[in-house]
Amino acid sequence: MKVEVMKNILGENDKIAEENRKLFKEKKVFVINLMGSPGSGKTSLLERTIANLKDKLKMAVIEGDLFTAKDAERIERHNVPVIQINTAGGCHLDAPMVKRAAESLDLDALDLIIVENVGNLVCPAEFDVGENIKAVVLSITEGDDKPLKYPLIFKESAVAILNKIDILKFTNFNLESAREDLTTIHPDIKIIETSCTTAEGLDKWYEFLLNTV
Amino acid sequence: MKVEVMKNILGENDKIAEENRKLFKEKKVFVINLMGSPGSGKTSLLERTIANLKDKLKMAVIEGDLFTAKDAERIERHNVPVIQINTAGGCHLDAPMVKRAAESLDLDALDLIIVENVGNLVCPAEFDVGENIKAVVLSITEGDDKPLKYPLIFKESAVAILNKIDILKFTNFNLESAREDLTTIHPDIKIIETSCTTAEGLDKWYEFLLNTV
Repeated sequence: MKVEVMKNILGENDKIAEENRKLFKEKKVFVINLMGSPGSGKTSLLERTIANLKDKLKMAVIEGDLFTAKDAERIERHNVPVIQINTAGGCHLDAPMVKRAAESLDLDALDLIIVENVGNLVCPAEFDVGENIKAVVLSITEGDDKPLKYPLIFKESAVAILNKIDILKFTNFNLESAREDLTTIHPDIKIIETSCTTAEGLDKWYEFLLNTV
Repeated sequence: MKVEVMKNILGENDKIAEENRKLFKEKKVFVINLMGSPGSGKTSLLERTIANLKDKLKMAVIEGDLFTAKDAERIERHNVPVIQINTAGGCHLDAPMVKRAAESLDLDALDLIIVENVGNLVCPAEFDVGENIKAVVLSITEGDDKPLKYPLIFKESAVAILNKIDILKFTNFNLESAREDLTTIHPDIKIIETSCTTAEGLDKWYEFLLNTV
């Protein structure tokens, strides 16, 4: 019975995700579903990305949060369109939420929408929102055991950003073993090491975006 | 319809949580539901706690993980009983899972069970597992905006452990503002700053446990 209901919820979500994907394709907008733990640095990465690429890519951001608009306020300062979704405690974004948010954006004027999901390494990976690719931010302060412990999100993501690399030496994070585990889980995953504090490695992320969008 | 189903699931969970709570009380075992983001330091805190208090408190650990037994293996080295629950991708522990795990423990021989929940700042807070208190670990590398962004888990927790305090100076975490927000969300919350690397502040956590259990 529970399984049946879950299937229906996912079935309905996937239908709307496909509609979103079709609409984004028609409008020639590339969509990235950006996921990661609370505090992994998703919003900081977005702020850096907008500041550096907004002359090259016409960007908008859809911000998913439980209650506040704190992240949307950070993005708004960079003068790109931003739509806040509050999930009212819900642990992930779903396709209907992104559909409603996209209705408030002028899709004809955009190249790229980045959807910043709720901070959560589990649930967001299970819900297609109609994106072209998923991306996951893992901060090295979270520990190198996270890929094997939370495999789905890394399996689903085209790119893994290993963030906060500037404080690597103050942690016991083993880069080599994390890279190995990521590649075991997802042989084609692109791995980029970054620091949003020192800007180290961000050029590789920008290059990836410019080549992919 | 969706709401109805959710109510039934929670209703069933709460019933079993109460049964767990009654059993734990009969057996005079105190139970802590330990929550926090992936990589906040829950397992490290447990390792330190067991090493320091196992002569004073008879402890066992119930480990919740999506798939692996990595955390349980870390705990096992400290020679306390540990039961691994694998949620098979599920984002939180529920009362039936803890009930089954507790059946494998000799409750008469225990003072304290610490249940380490799945690394997730959202979903675990919604599910009573029959614990006496909830505790949340927030690592300062996650950012000082987390209490306001994920309020439920801090509202539900009797104690908030601000972990990784040894690398505070390498972050922009504002301790004062985090404390203020925590107290706004939950006026009675106990806040303890710790480092599981340098052991700073852990004495306060041990003291809290010895006074509470």
